[in-house]
Amino acid sequence: MKVLVDGEIVARSAVKVDMEDRGYQFGDGVYEVINVYDGVPFTLDEHIVRLYRSAKEIGISINFESDHLKNDIRKLIKDNDMKKGGLYLQVTRGVAPRTHQYQKDIASKLVAYPLPYKEMSETRSTGVTAITEQDLRWLRCDIKSLNLLYNVMIKQKAYEQGAFEAILIRDGVVTEGTSSNVFIIKDGIIYTHPATNLILNGITRQKLLEVYEENGWTYKEQSFSTLELMEADEVFVTSTTSEVVPVISIDGKAINNGSPGSLTRKIQQAFSMTVKNETSSVVG
Amino acid sequence: MKVLVDGEIVARSAVKVDMEDRGYQFGDGVYEVINVYDGVPFTLDEHIVRLYRSAKEIGISINFESDHLKNDIRKLIKDNDMKKGGLYLQVTRGVAPRTHQYQKDIASKLVAYPLPYKEMSETRSTGVTAITEQDLRWLRCDIKSLNLLYNVMIKQKAYEQGAFEAILIRDGVVTEGTSSNVFIIKDGIIYTHPATNLILNGITRQKLLEVYEENGWTYKEQSFSTLELMEADEVFVTSTTSEVVPVISIDGKAINNGSPGSLTRKIQQAFSMTVKNETSSVVG
Repeated sequence: MKVLVDGEIVARSAVKVDMEDRGYQFGDGVYEVINVYDGVPFTLDEHIVRLYRSAKEIGISINFESDHLKNDIRKLIKDNDMKKGGLYLQVTRGVAPRTHQYQKDIASKLVAYPLPYKEMSETRSTGVTAITEQDLRWLRCDIKSLNLLYNVMIKQKAYEQGAFEAILIRDGVVTEGTSSNVFIIKDGIIYTHPATNLILNGITRQKLLEVYEENGWTYKEQSFSTLELMEADEVFVTSTTSEVVPVISIDGKAINNGSPGSLTRKIQQAFSMTVKNETSSVVG
Repeated sequence: MKVLVDGEIVARSAVKVDMEDRGYQFGDGVYEVINVYDGVPFTLDEHIVRLYRSAKEIGISINFESDHLKNDIRKLIKDNDMKKGGLYLQVTRGVAPRTHQYQKDIASKLVAYPLPYKEMSETRSTGVTAITEQDLRWLRCDIKSLNLLYNVMIKQKAYEQGAFEAILIRDGVVTEGTSSNVFIIKDGIIYTHPATNLILNGITRQKLLEVYEENGWTYKEQSFSTLELMEADEVFVTSTTSEVVPVISIDGKAINNGSPGSLTRKIQQAFSMTVKNETSSVVG
């Protein structure tokens, strides 16, 4: 495997992380996962815009212009002969003697590489189970940072119970999943939490809102309660690598009689069409 | 400099961190800073107990018995000919392909080394200024984890304003500093936030409660408001490497007319005596 490190593409074995990298000691960095279809990075622009936005929010300056970075990513895909799957990209503040405060002139560190491919088509077809858990995270979930410990703890809890995802609840309101956004459908209307400081505004989430517009499906960026979640007609979770995944059971209670809902199916198809259109028109 | 890596002491230049170390990608780890006086690690037992407790809370199993680890730390101090200053120690969950959930059998990774020494005696003598900021952190601040991004952001904000520390306020209540515990004195009584999920129960904080007992000073582990902070007779912050630091101004408003308070001075002296007693009786 080839890895992009600060503008250079090197062998996996040549990648060195310093023990005083602030990413390692403070989780002081930001990241993105970009999905590649047939060798083309989907919504690359959107991911890169969000990466720079996250970095800016925590005062990290990325050493590359975004066009330069996008070219490096395309080269990384080619050099790995990568056809599909997630491409991971992180930027940390850089290497410095450990103190909470930092010098502004330290050089940020960028690492990007292809994640192991995980086939999700059966999961998307059959749907998944989920659990609910308290959302105890910080109040800047809009920043896609490396401070992911609570997400890790709760995702692990879900997996240990045989569930695919944990849906987080803050003050009685559904925010998002540990690594996904959550949508419900009630009486034909699609609901999802508004893009505030309480959730990460997923690129798939954003793309889906466009898809709903195009298809004339009614949606509201409006928060909903745990009860509304449990009594929804259909529920699904979305993320870059899993796309649109029907949730057929939550905390052991069946949603839509334990089957993926019909509008969820249409949304999956429409999203796939969007991916196809946007990745086939691009020369990889 | 020599570094302790998983039970072996190696040269700084030989330390390798893998890019798929979960510490680097998720902040998935815990840490301690232990202060060394005259070659002796102060409150080593307490720090090690807390390290194992933090690790347990997030499901990391440390590969060494605590007695083994303590011996390694003493050896690290000797091999570095370290007389004083902070010794940093972190344990991450280990190296694995990136997914939020994890396999329980991956081997955790331990790194420890001496931090650059920082002379604090003048700071402790003259006192410092502080600012107040909203506490937006997660609700498991009792775990000493590597997810320190908010602490970093706010400590940086303090430094950019020329302040030593930012005092965090959650729902109108003072919790702690970005890297310290906060104490106030009002009418002869010492107050500090109780050791709940909202603060990190500092070892210096714990030790000071013993010191207050021994000296017959009245204290209450009872939370206080921003107003009570601002109207306190004396304020100080405590941490392992800074010990007891008088706060003489908050958000530009003088505390105790801008001077370290008299009880704060007595507490500093009593703490120094405790350190002296506990580190001189030990054979380093």
